[in-house]
Amino acid sequence: MASIGLCGLAVMGQNLALNIADKGFSISVYNRTYAKTEAAVARAKKEKLDDKLHGYENFKDFVHSLAKPRRVIMLVQAGKPVDATIEGLLEFMEKDDIIIDGGNEWYENTERRQKYVGDKGVRYMAMGVSGGEEGARRGPSLMPGGTQEAYKYIEEIVKKVAAQVDDGPCVTYIGEGGAGNFVKMVHNGIEYGDMQLISEAYDVLKTVGGLTNPELEQAFNDWNKTELNSFLIEITALIFGKKDDQGEGFLLDKVLDKTGMKGTGKWTVQQAAELSVAAPTIEAALDGRFLSGLKDERKQAAKFYQTKHGLKEPEPLKGVDKAKLVDMVRQALYAAKICSYSQGMNIIRAKSIEKGWNINMGSLARIWKGGCIIRAGFLDDIKQAYERNLELHNLLVDPYFGEKVAERQEAWREVIKLAITAGVAVPGLSISLAYFDAYRRDRLPANLVQAQRDFFGSHTYERVDKPADQWFHTVWDENFGSADSITTSGYKS
Amino acid sequence: MASIGLCGLAVMGQNLALNIADKGFSISVYNRTYAKTEAAVARAKKEKLDDKLHGYENFKDFVHSLAKPRRVIMLVQAGKPVDATIEGLLEFMEKDDIIIDGGNEWYENTERRQKYVGDKGVRYMAMGVSGGEEGARRGPSLMPGGTQEAYKYIEEIVKKVAAQVDDGPCVTYIGEGGAGNFVKMVHNGIEYGDMQLISEAYDVLKTVGGLTNPELEQAFNDWNKTELNSFLIEITALIFGKKDDQGEGFLLDKVLDKTGMKGTGKWTVQQAAELSVAAPTIEAALDGRFLSGLKDERKQAAKFYQTKHGLKEPEPLKGVDKAKLVDMVRQALYAAKICSYSQGMNIIRAKSIEKGWNINMGSLARIWKGGCIIRAGFLDDIKQAYERNLELHNLLVDPYFGEKVAERQEAWREVIKLAITAGVAVPGLSISLAYFDAYRRDRLPANLVQAQRDFFGSHTYERVDKPADQWFHTVWDENFGSADSITTSGYKS
Repeated sequence: MASIGLCGLAVMGQNLALNIADKGFSISVYNRTYAKTEAAVARAKKEKLDDKLHGYENFKDFVHSLAKPRRVIMLVQAGKPVDATIEGLLEFMEKDDIIIDGGNEWYENTERRQKYVGDKGVRYMAMGVSGGEEGARRGPSLMPGGTQEAYKYIEEIVKKVAAQVDDGPCVTYIGEGGAGNFVKMVHNGIEYGDMQLISEAYDVLKTVGGLTNPELEQAFNDWNKTELNSFLIEITALIFGKKDDQGEGFLLDKVLDKTGMKGTGKWTVQQAAELSVAAPTIEAALDGRFLSGLKDERKQAAKFYQTKHGLKEPEPLKGVDKAKLVDMVRQALYAAKICSYSQGMNIIRAKSIEKGWNINMGSLARIWKGGCIIRAGFLDDIKQAYERNLELHNLLVDPYFGEKVAERQEAWREVIKLAITAGVAVPGLSISLAYFDAYRRDRLPANLVQAQRDFFGSHTYERVDKPADQWFHTVWDENFGSADSITTSGYKS
Repeated sequence: MASIGLCGLAVMGQNLALNIADKGFSISVYNRTYAKTEAAVARAKKEKLDDKLHGYENFKDFVHSLAKPRRVIMLVQAGKPVDATIEGLLEFMEKDDIIIDGGNEWYENTERRQKYVGDKGVRYMAMGVSGGEEGARRGPSLMPGGTQEAYKYIEEIVKKVAAQVDDGPCVTYIGEGGAGNFVKMVHNGIEYGDMQLISEAYDVLKTVGGLTNPELEQAFNDWNKTELNSFLIEITALIFGKKDDQGEGFLLDKVLDKTGMKGTGKWTVQQAAELSVAAPTIEAALDGRFLSGLKDERKQAAKFYQTKHGLKEPEPLKGVDKAKLVDMVRQALYAAKICSYSQGMNIIRAKSIEKGWNINMGSLARIWKGGCIIRAGFLDDIKQAYERNLELHNLLVDPYFGEKVAERQEAWREVIKLAITAGVAVPGLSISLAYFDAYRRDRLPANLVQAQRDFFGSHTYERVDKPADQWFHTVWDENFGSADSITTSGYKS
């Protein structure tokens, strides 16, 4: 009997199945269209894993090939396909069997299914899987959620299958319900932030500093040996060096500036708002993708401002020292990333409190150290920050990160000012700085906003010289509310 | 028999009822707790409107006092109270009667109720009401949605009750279903943006420029005679001039810098994400409110960076010319407002297309010219922009606004750079500039983001030198996916 089963054999599914077999576990695989099952079996043969991996044509044989309690990982499209697969499995599964959804599913769908499947005595988990196709094959970061008791039955397998780093396998039990989905969703939101910030660093160096692709490749390779060391910085260096496989020059210059997306970034922004957590860097990244999609509008707007109003395309600023700029942008990028990760961590912390998931933030940072797309050297520093203070409200006030950001804030400001002068949009870098400058500010101009709300809506306000939760209302203007005042403003331009 | 009825007699409800009576319509009023009904009747007596306004103790007498088809406006708390009121009304209402929800309700709740109430032959509308207590009493901006045929029965009344401006009453039929709620929701989102931007202008003038409250009052009074002419600018000037009614100095300086909110701003941000519309200025405003609420965290962070890292509280910059700064901030504020309004308008346009509401953007701008909180002189310019081009994709490319923004962009950049130098957070002003600089850019660095997605996820990309919708995938690095590559990055800091 096989140790585990896997349904859904697109590339991610095939790779994860081969990874599991590779780690010494016998695995049964199934796919709705049998051709993909045959493809998976063929790949297993090619990689000499065909003694471990076996394919089945229908749910019955597939389920019956598994040792009890049966464990089945689904890697099918989120939504209806997941529900259909569950129905197929339930027909043959028995009490205490375990279904594990490995897709990017909305956490509330998982919690609905946990109830539904649970009523039939079957246990249901959702496990975030990050690392792309390579991670799935070689060792992903795994974020399993559901009942702790069900987790015990998959723990041995997932610990071997996950990426291995200096302090253990990149997997830990996340929490009850849809916690695994939620954490993976925010992981992707942080990924959006990282990619946006890196693209802005690229734009500043290329457009403001005039760096060539080889110079950019060099800069990013150098950065990968610094506090920026990470998977995304590493592959970006490789991207800069890639020659066009269909013509002259570098491939990156031929890639259209339109970015796709799959929804987890959108969900992250919507959840941040729902939880009253400020996540401006991640929002800027999502908006960056939206704006990238408006290619035709941007073309027209560029032409409009260039021809009608003489606003030129941004171009390199005179007298900018390339080496100095590279050094400043490195500092700006790092400081902004701290803000972005803080926002993501705080979304998870807020949700964990709301749902009672009791998520350990330090262990999250640990399992993101390897396998996943956001793996980075400084995740170990984040882990340590939460080990220093389990209740840390913001990475910006951790002693280590606070010092790092303070050291870099001057360069950070300088980079943004250069970009603004050149007309290069740096939404992520600048909104992150605003986040930092607002968060470190005892007194914000929010007193005016609250005064306005009290003026027109009697929403009341607290006073700086009175105890909290003492609320005051003032009639700010005697005429206000009279027939005159309404006519004095607005439409008389 | 009364022409119309109104349920829910909190201040907004009382004021709207008095307004309706004031315009010559006989009105019946009802409230769950009779005391408020008595209060409304007493106010009517005081204002010599008691021949027009009559109170009732129960739904039966209330409903039976109305001429058919009966028209009842509800101004009760969104959610369950609305459902409870509907049940009370349905008990006595008859076919073709009309219920109108005037609250800030989630548009999908309205569409659910339209079905439910419609099955009983009763017609259901939702009408956004903006203008605060004063607007309700003197003349609000009204945004009615539902069936056009039901609207005919309230048209005469709402046209008299609404604020009157140079080109008509501030009301127009918005669209089917929950269109009225949705448009009011985005109106509030735009209001969030305006208030955030004004608070940043205040912060820059006060903290960077060292302006006193009287100087701020003067500046805003002067601004109210310019392109910034608006209700919010006008009341802000009055706020600056208000002396503390409980002690020395100006009241604004005693108001705690914590801003409350009621959910429509949050919904606007979530809907923008849902509709793939970039709304960074409105997001910055929402985040500004979230951060304002973290007063204790901010206190601690300020102390942390001041004592541990010598980052001082922001203070006025040397050699800043106050008059010149006021002039530059006016330009920055105006340019950023155009971005904010564009975002709001585009959220509505996207939803209107999705739902087939066929909303006329120009008429929206027109009904916001009076009565509501965002009423402003330049709403007439927005109206004209959409009259020039019904399909306008962005105010930034309208000939009039394009010129205005182009003229102001240098000052806009300068103001943000000064704030960044001083360490004053200007999230709304700076993310709006980034929105402008990204939107007017033919080529964004999104090509790198898409290249990264293709590198680790095989998401494919389009090419600048090939027709659209031709998709390419590249193996960006030969080693990638091999056992080596996974170990070369991430956790080796």
